Amino acid sequence: MDCYLGIDLGGTNLKAGLFDSRLRLLAQKSLPIGKAIPPEEICRRIAALAENLLQAAGIRRGQVAWLGAAIPGTVDAAAGLAVRSANLGFDRFPIGPCLEEKTGLAVHLANDADAAAWGEYWPVRQHCRSLLMVTLGTGIGSGLVMDGRLFAGAFGGGLEAGHMIVQKEGRLCTCGQRGCWEAYASATGLICSVNEAISAHPASGLAALAAAAGQVDGKTAFDACRQGDPTARQVVEDYLDWLAAGLIGLINLLEPEEVVLSGGIAREGEWFLEEVRRRVLPRLYHPAARHRTLLRGSVWECGPGLAGAALLGFGMGEGEDRLS
Amino acid sequence: MDCYLGIDLGGTNLKAGLFDSRLRLLAQKSLPIGKAIPPEEICRRIAALAENLLQAAGIRRGQVAWLGAAIPGTVDAAAGLAVRSANLGFDRFPIGPCLEEKTGLAVHLANDADAAAWGEYWPVRQHCRSLLMVTLGTGIGSGLVMDGRLFAGAFGGGLEAGHMIVQKEGRLCTCGQRGCWEAYASATGLICSVNEAISAHPASGLAALAAAAGQVDGKTAFDACRQGDPTARQVVEDYLDWLAAGLIGLINLLEPEEVVLSGGIAREGEWFLEEVRRRVLPRLYHPAARHRTLLRGSVWECGPGLAGAALLGFGMGEGEDRLS
Repeated sequence: MDCYLGIDLGGTNLKAGLFDSRLRLLAQKSLPIGKAIPPEEICRRIAALAENLLQAAGIRRGQVAWLGAAIPGTVDAAAGLAVRSANLGFDRFPIGPCLEEKTGLAVHLANDADAAAWGEYWPVRQHCRSLLMVTLGTGIGSGLVMDGRLFAGAFGGGLEAGHMIVQKEGRLCTCGQRGCWEAYASATGLICSVNEAISAHPASGLAALAAAAGQVDGKTAFDACRQGDPTARQVVEDYLDWLAAGLIGLINLLEPEEVVLSGGIAREGEWFLEEVRRRVLPRLYHPAARHRTLLRGSVWECGPGLAGAALLGFGMGEGEDRLS
Repeated sequence: MDCYLGIDLGGTNLKAGLFDSRLRLLAQKSLPIGKAIPPEEICRRIAALAENLLQAAGIRRGQVAWLGAAIPGTVDAAAGLAVRSANLGFDRFPIGPCLEEKTGLAVHLANDADAAAWGEYWPVRQHCRSLLMVTLGTGIGSGLVMDGRLFAGAFGGGLEAGHMIVQKEGRLCTCGQRGCWEAYASATGLICSVNEAISAHPASGLAALAAAAGQVDGKTAFDACRQGDPTARQVVEDYLDWLAAGLIGLINLLEPEEVVLSGGIAREGEWFLEEVRRRVLPRLYHPAARHRTLLRGSVWECGPGLAGAALLGFGMGEGEDRLS
């Protein structure tokens, strides 16, 4: 029985998961990481964590087919390089060879959003050839599988949906442009809208909830909305409209069969997905797309990035027969 | 010596061109067509026109490798069907078999924007693997070649950039949505802006030029701008900004190596392209893209749709060795 080891490197946290050949998660562990830790040391900790996982699951190293790593930032998968990462100190770091040396495993790399798209695509590949993944987090992550292949782009950045312009001369984005989708539809964009609403409506339930919690996060508006606060309700409605505006453009452009929303905000659950569907599907350009586009949440409780990392060895149509 | 026959079906006009194996245009002819002409009759006229072209160029039927047809609307290339076309009366019409029967040639089909993308990609394929084509006409046509393959989308619509939303709750589009890129950056969008500016500034040079011409078209604003009219200048500046907003989003999203602008407005020439580059390139998200994205006009004087149609037989990497 082959097993697959997945590593999902976040900006502040590293997750490792061991999957069996039926893609069941056998064991999972995580570690704090960050920019202060040198890349070589990160590799050393990953190797120790991997060892740890194998022991916990009672799996021998020889049973592990590969280690797949999802990296936040630009990746040169062929060369095994972590080219650049805003949240980790990678600068053309040969993370592939370094992990191979320290773990003795074959290593596959991908950008984290691409890995997430692959993780959602792989289990449905029998009936789906094209899938768009959108992760609503600090920024907007996005990945596309088309005709069974990960979309790479010419400069290795893959699909970068966050910096589509949805409002010319709109809100300032971290990239320096105005009106990027990410500035409205990421968790950061939502938090910005909540703070604006609190300034405008200091006596609202939303303001009270934020004051009681001592902070605003991606859940604040949804929680206050559930408590019946009209200010929060308006923020949530506006957020859904911004999210829909970008999704409509993306789906019109790329025509995927399945669209997966993930990230903290998507974990609001089925009512959230239904609100998004209601705003997006009837407004799509292609009549077929209105009825046939499946808009859903992630199939992975452990997160699509971790599962996708473990599945990276199933690249470009190879290895399909390895799955039992 | 092999020759290639291309047919570009427009809504009101049909162009046919005969190319030699070095992709030189040997002969070109055109015909008026329209919704009133039954599909079978369109095929008959294409066959007659093809015969006519061969005679004009002194080429025998046996020297023609194939006929490629670019169709305005949705195409099922594998089945040889013109699925739907807004401007011609096609409704799942088997145009492929019909043309094969009437011309005795192998027939290849594609959507017209996809054919145009293919026509720009083919001559540069030695150094370019990904190319985005944007046609600024009545609507916005778009096509993408990625890793040497035409991007199809799940429902055969290909890339549909015109209905990206660039202004939430913006100008009403023909598709029923608000704020689509096409509503601002197509020739129709520009004409709409000119008419708005004439209403607001009836004493402007722009208004005088439109009155003298008896109509507004895609050139009116550019002509009045060249005559120094400040109202027209503002319309042109705004148009360029809208065009740039959509292009920035598209290039950030898809990361093509080359971006080709075609259609009537792009024929304003090099100063126009330079204005677009100035607004787009420095504002791209990926640092590499700012320097390495080539934004250019079409290489085809006869139009990329016609040339691309003739090149459709060079599909998916086959037949590369046929070119001398």
